Amino acid sequence: MTAETNEASDLTGQLAELRERIGVLEDELAVRRVIAAYGPAVDSGDSAATGALWTREAVYDMDVGVLDGRDEITAMVDGPVHQEIIGGGSAHAIGPAAVDLHGDEATAITYSQLFRGDGKGGFWIWRVAANRWELARTPEGWQVVRRTTRLLDGRPDARELLRRTAGR
Amino acid sequence: MTAETNEASDLTGQLAELRERIGVLEDELAVRRVIAAYGPAVDSGDSAATGALWTREAVYDMDVGVLDGRDEITAMVDGPVHQEIIGGGSAHAIGPAAVDLHGDEATAITYSQLFRGDGKGGFWIWRVAANRWELARTPEGWQVVRRTTRLLDGRPDARELLRRTAGR
Amino acid sequence: MTAETNEASDLTGQLAELRERIGVLEDELAVRRVIAAYGPAVDSGDSAATGALWTREAVYDMDVGVLDGRDEITAMVDGPVHQEIIGGGSAHAIGPAAVDLHGDEATAITYSQLFRGDGKGGFWIWRVAANRWELARTPEGWQVVRRTTRLLDGRPDARELLRRTAGR
Repeated sequence: MTAETNEASDLTGQLAELRERIGVLEDELAVRRVIAAYGPAVDSGDSAATGALWTREAVYDMDVGVLDGRDEITAMVDGPVHQEIIGGGSAHAIGPAAVDLHGDEATAITYSQLFRGDGKGGFWIWRVAANRWELARTPEGWQVVRRTTRLLDGRPDARELLRRTAGR
Repeated sequence: MTAETNEASDLTGQLAELRERIGVLEDELAVRRVIAAYGPAVDSGDSAATGALWTREAVYDMDVGVLDGRDEITAMVDGPVHQEIIGGGSAHAIGPAAVDLHGDEATAITYSQLFRGDGKGGFWIWRVAANRWELARTPEGWQVVRRTTRLLDGRPDARELLRRTAGR
Repeated sequence: MTAETNEASDLTGQLAELRERIGVLEDELAVRRVIAAYGPAVDSGDSAATGALWTREAVYDMDVGVLDGRDEITAMVDGPVHQEIIGGGSAHAIGPAAVDLHGDEATAITYSQLFRGDGKGGFWIWRVAANRWELARTPEGWQVVRRTTRLLDGRPDARELLRRTAGR
């Protein structure tokens, strides 16, 4: 090998390293983008856009029940309870995600607040919850595989969910 | 061409690709930085800092009126209504942005909550809104060209605004 | 020098530039990750995880008092006041950070809302505050050196804190 090809080989190795680091940054922002898209999708009543954020077999495990599969999630958006909520004005505000990437999978912890219009020009807080998101890289990009949500009303399981924070 | 220059040419192409991907990541964080700077600017009453976030011809389209141009935006911050709001304590809390970059332009969707002090040590929610931001790369960096804000009180136009979510 | 080594030398310089830009992006996300981990740590009552976010000599300067050093911060989490707060349900919701990096140090501005359960299935807002975070790169990663928090109830010092916004 000549000095020049040694140099080129080293540059190739460095490029591969930088490429991997860029990929990790892109993945973290992509994961955040999926989570940031959830609120606008459900508050606008766009069940197809909501469904596209989840894998077909995804599970949305809430304290008030479990939605099993994308079809049950889109049906929730189209259903009468959700339609009544958004009819009066709602904001599924989801905070900055603490993301923990591991290859083709990721977990994220977020708070969520559900603000609702009171019909008299004001707003009130209906739900404040802890959320753990499990995501996977799929042929359609990053999608949610499982979301677990627990009301932060003092119940131990919400604190337990937060304890398993990303990166710890 | 020698094998070495072929190699170098390929490395140059790879560097260009990585450079572009890094630029996209930097742009997304820059866009988020502009949006994150809005609240602190208006809640501290810093009209110059607020104005610097917008282009000179920017439009701030709120449900309660339209501000046309940077000068009207800075005048709003200096005006008596805004001064009274911040005098009693206010937080223009703006959530994580769902950013959609396309070259020298970007759109972003956010929720916003306007929390206000009640003068008795407590706080209340005055406004909960959907926001669509349109930004552009300018000689001064990324700036807001148009922000459209609609109260999430059940009105259809707020839901319509959220439906046009970034990336969809 | 041959043309090939000139080329390689240029590529090495470009790699160094890209490496630095990637490092800045990684740092910004790392800083955000530290801030995003604070809420889950304190709301789950995990004093060790809370302490790990701060340097040993860190200062948490609140309007209601000053915690001097990591040990006082972890003691606060384990103390009766905090335990009572989380026992009834609490969300230390901290918004998107406006981060200003400068080498091995960083500052960030955030809003924070402290939502609490009312014991009857509802929630209320206890505190809405402005926060300035000072962080440093340490052998354990990015850690908080000082956090200053001021209630946004109209007091001038909260507005002053927001005025010193990241990046301005």
